[in-house]
Amino acid sequence: MAQVTNGVGHVSPIFLDDMQIGDRYTSAEHALDEAQIIAFAAQFDPQPFHLDHDAAKSSMFGGLAASGWHTVAITMRLMVTSGLPVAGGIVGAGADVQWPRPTRPDDVLHVVSEIISIVPSKSRPDRGMVTTRNTTYNQRGEEVQVLTAKMVVPQRPV
Amino acid sequence: MAQVTNGVGHVSPIFLDDMQIGDRYTSAEHALDEAQIIAFAAQFDPQPFHLDHDAAKSSMFGGLAASGWHTVAITMRLMVTSGLPVAGGIVGAGADVQWPRPTRPDDVLHVVSEIISIVPSKSRPDRGMVTTRNTTYNQRGEEVQVLTAKMVVPQRPV
Repeated sequence: MAQVTNGVGHVSPIFLDDMQIGDRYTSAEHALDEAQIIAFAAQFDPQPFHLDHDAAKSSMFGGLAASGWHTVAITMRLMVTSGLPVAGGIVGAGADVQWPRPTRPDDVLHVVSEIISIVPSKSRPDRGMVTTRNTTYNQRGEEVQVLTAKMVVPQRPV
Repeated sequence: MAQVTNGVGHVSPIFLDDMQIGDRYTSAEHALDEAQIIAFAAQFDPQPFHLDHDAAKSSMFGGLAASGWHTVAITMRLMVTSGLPVAGGIVGAGADVQWPRPTRPDDVLHVVSEIISIVPSKSRPDRGMVTTRNTTYNQRGEEVQVLTAKMVVPQRPV
């Protein structure tokens, strides 16, 4: 299995023909904090357990937790800026997301993206559909999110 | 099929025992604009087709498009503030998201949430897992996103 580390944003863009199943890309890190969690929640997911430390204690989360969509958004930023260097950008067609445990205020997150499927398009020979499993880990190496995403990837221009 | 309209945030919270397969909840509307699209993208999905009108023209999108995660975030806000009034809040366990077409700067979005599966927990009789299909429409009634989400819902306290 190929192992490719990025993490610094200096890898050349990769095309469909460069990809192999099992290739992995590791992103840089993002340090979360309570202010970021509350700011995202106030705008997009205004529920007590994402907004208020005390209210969160008596919720299912047992303490302040980031909105799952905040974890996704941070994951996307890490992938775009330092993770998977897809030529032409990361254009998602659809995705599945699981949150095995909450993301917390002091978490330092990074993402490991692995290519798990490559399907060249039959109707459009200049592109294909690639599925990646993008696992977001906290500073203890625990999975906080598994994002399986289908993306459109161009072939290298002839 | 039960048809329930919310849209104004004045519906009483619903518990697991209140839910029936086929129940629908319609959210209020959210008017998008270019500034919101660019602000979200700059923070979480900094790719040219989400950031710059001219760069987007030559991309697969053919013009400025919102990050798919921005559409999800707006959808979540609409569901939380005016859509599905789940008792105890919307706590997602996982989700599948599809984007049949791009979300554009002038779009006015609303969400229709439909309950498609209800599974009482065997180990925890005070709760269950509910699957909802949350379809986000633009002002022309076109689907821009289909978000199928599993959420933990409490039984009404005895």
